[in-house]
Amino acid sequence: MKKIFNVAVVGASGLVGRKILEILEERDFPIDKLYLFASNKSAGLPLIYKNTKYTIEELTETSFQNIDIALFSAGKEVSRKYAPIAVAAGAVVIDNGSYWRLNDSVPLLVPEVNPEALSAHHGIIANPNCSTIQMLVALKPIADNYGLKRVVVSTYQSISGAGQKGITQLADEIIGNEPNKRISSKSLAFNTVFHSFADGNDFTEEEIKMLNESRKILSLPELKIAVTCVRLPILGGHGESLNIETEKPFDISLLRSLLSNAPGISIIDSPEKDEYPTTALAQESDNVYIGRIRRDKTVENGFYMWVVADNIRKGAATNAVQIAELLVRNNLFDFNTINFE
Amino acid sequence: MKKIFNVAVVGASGLVGRKILEILEERDFPIDKLYLFASNKSAGLPLIYKNTKYTIEELTETSFQNIDIALFSAGKEVSRKYAPIAVAAGAVVIDNGSYWRLNDSVPLLVPEVNPEALSAHHGIIANPNCSTIQMLVALKPIADNYGLKRVVVSTYQSISGAGQKGITQLADEIIGNEPNKRISSKSLAFNTVFHSFADGNDFTEEEIKMLNESRKILSLPELKIAVTCVRLPILGGHGESLNIETEKPFDISLLRSLLSNAPGISIIDSPEKDEYPTTALAQESDNVYIGRIRRDKTVENGFYMWVVADNIRKGAATNAVQIAELLVRNNLFDFNTINFE
Repeated sequence: MKKIFNVAVVGASGLVGRKILEILEERDFPIDKLYLFASNKSAGLPLIYKNTKYTIEELTETSFQNIDIALFSAGKEVSRKYAPIAVAAGAVVIDNGSYWRLNDSVPLLVPEVNPEALSAHHGIIANPNCSTIQMLVALKPIADNYGLKRVVVSTYQSISGAGQKGITQLADEIIGNEPNKRISSKSLAFNTVFHSFADGNDFTEEEIKMLNESRKILSLPELKIAVTCVRLPILGGHGESLNIETEKPFDISLLRSLLSNAPGISIIDSPEKDEYPTTALAQESDNVYIGRIRRDKTVENGFYMWVVADNIRKGAATNAVQIAELLVRNNLFDFNTINFE
Repeated sequence: MKKIFNVAVVGASGLVGRKILEILEERDFPIDKLYLFASNKSAGLPLIYKNTKYTIEELTETSFQNIDIALFSAGKEVSRKYAPIAVAAGAVVIDNGSYWRLNDSVPLLVPEVNPEALSAHHGIIANPNCSTIQMLVALKPIADNYGLKRVVVSTYQSISGAGQKGITQLADEIIGNEPNKRISSKSLAFNTVFHSFADGNDFTEEEIKMLNESRKILSLPELKIAVTCVRLPILGGHGESLNIETEKPFDISLLRSLLSNAPGISIIDSPEKDEYPTTALAQESDNVYIGRIRRDKTVENGFYMWVVADNIRKGAATNAVQIAELLVRNNLFDFNTINFE
């Protein structure tokens, strides 16, 4: 059984790729050799890992010959094409993109929520959408103890979810420059916008991701979840306003202590001291913060909560590295190969 | 029957007071003499109305001797003390503050929603909270035609709701200055915060206002409405993510045309062209904009909508001037006096 691993970061120059590198170092992931890949546009760029300079190489079909774990964060198309190539070359892929998430042969994993799903992997493991991850860390203890009858969620999402380009458009607009890169034709500064609409649909792609991924991860294919996703002019951190109906009755103080004892959750919830989690507060933390826990008397078993996390860390990079840690801890490198085409 | 009126603006130097002046001019309100009042801090300041310079006078107990209509926007305490004084002196008060809103002898008015309530006034008429106004303009046609079973709303509110001081704190923080005036000890720039909590309550004052005022205005004392209010780093415009269950079934395209024909509403809702109302778009308009109208299949008769308005105009100043217009149009200057102490 291996104790140290050859690790590749694919999409290493992006916002999430760089954060993955940072988190691998923070958590002292057992790396033997580290490889950084990106498109030829970024090839040659240097990145620092544990005080050593690494150079980004261009991703090619032969990049994975010597890799145990490949962390992908390079967009849907790169994942579609290269994840099967990496698996065929002997790597296990942890993919941050959306392409593989709903594939029946691909576990979609939040380590605090469905770690058991990992053992059935066939070489590709998917990292869920940022908004989904933080919501499910918060909902899992509720689902297990009281059952979820219906969830209504409205999100308050950072522009960093659109990567460096989103941050640049917002920053340019705030200082009064005409952005030369845009993620939206609409103005982002001092404004609220929606994500891209799914083809022929009146829901956005982000909203559909939250619905489908939540159902898969919780193994609740009929879960009733009503979603509206909104993008804000904030640089990091997603907030979610949740209204939840449970199947069973609950005592609100027991529910609160259940959440505070659940993995990955920190509670900040003292209205009398004006204390609650803000999106800014969650930045640079791996925790999911919960506040505004209060009963909703408009339904039989209802309550509200406000859920906040760093969308680039727990919503992407940290969750991916946690999956890699789970893979290592359970030595899940032998798997049944299937044809991913 | 009078055709032109002596009008006082109380709190004329504030964000809403100045906007009231602007809207009186825009709508060519039939003014004979105009009086501008504020605290002694602002007394002496000049303001322009129809190309004429007016000077703000200090508000005193004798300010209302010659006034037909007094538009108050000077905070709760000023309204508490001076509105009864103004009425006793013969004025009709339209009050933008929260002090009188839930008083049984005070109509709480949105002209598109409950104009009939105006005739029962006793000299004080209250202007609702900004978030309530825009939500009810949108909900009224739904309530009348399908009945409201339950509403879940999460708001996306501009910092201008906290007046000039809120805007100044946000602007200072964005440019990196230490704000010398604050509406929140928390950072506003690139962040999401809540309003002040009501004493001994886990709901904020804003949330409680939306609940109580909606019930009063719609004459639905048992209305089930679940509210979460959030403040954003945006300068103007409130957004509201609404999830609605109706009593009766509806056809979604009929519901849409019902809304588009209702007073004060503009629909912008073409996902295929990426068209929807943003909070920035609503600024400097008196309309309530609705988009993202779509069925919610998680309940029997459910749908979503996204409701946006300029919180300083329709949410405050415009609604107040519309009430004054309704008062004039129906000549409601004779009323039964009561003791407002």
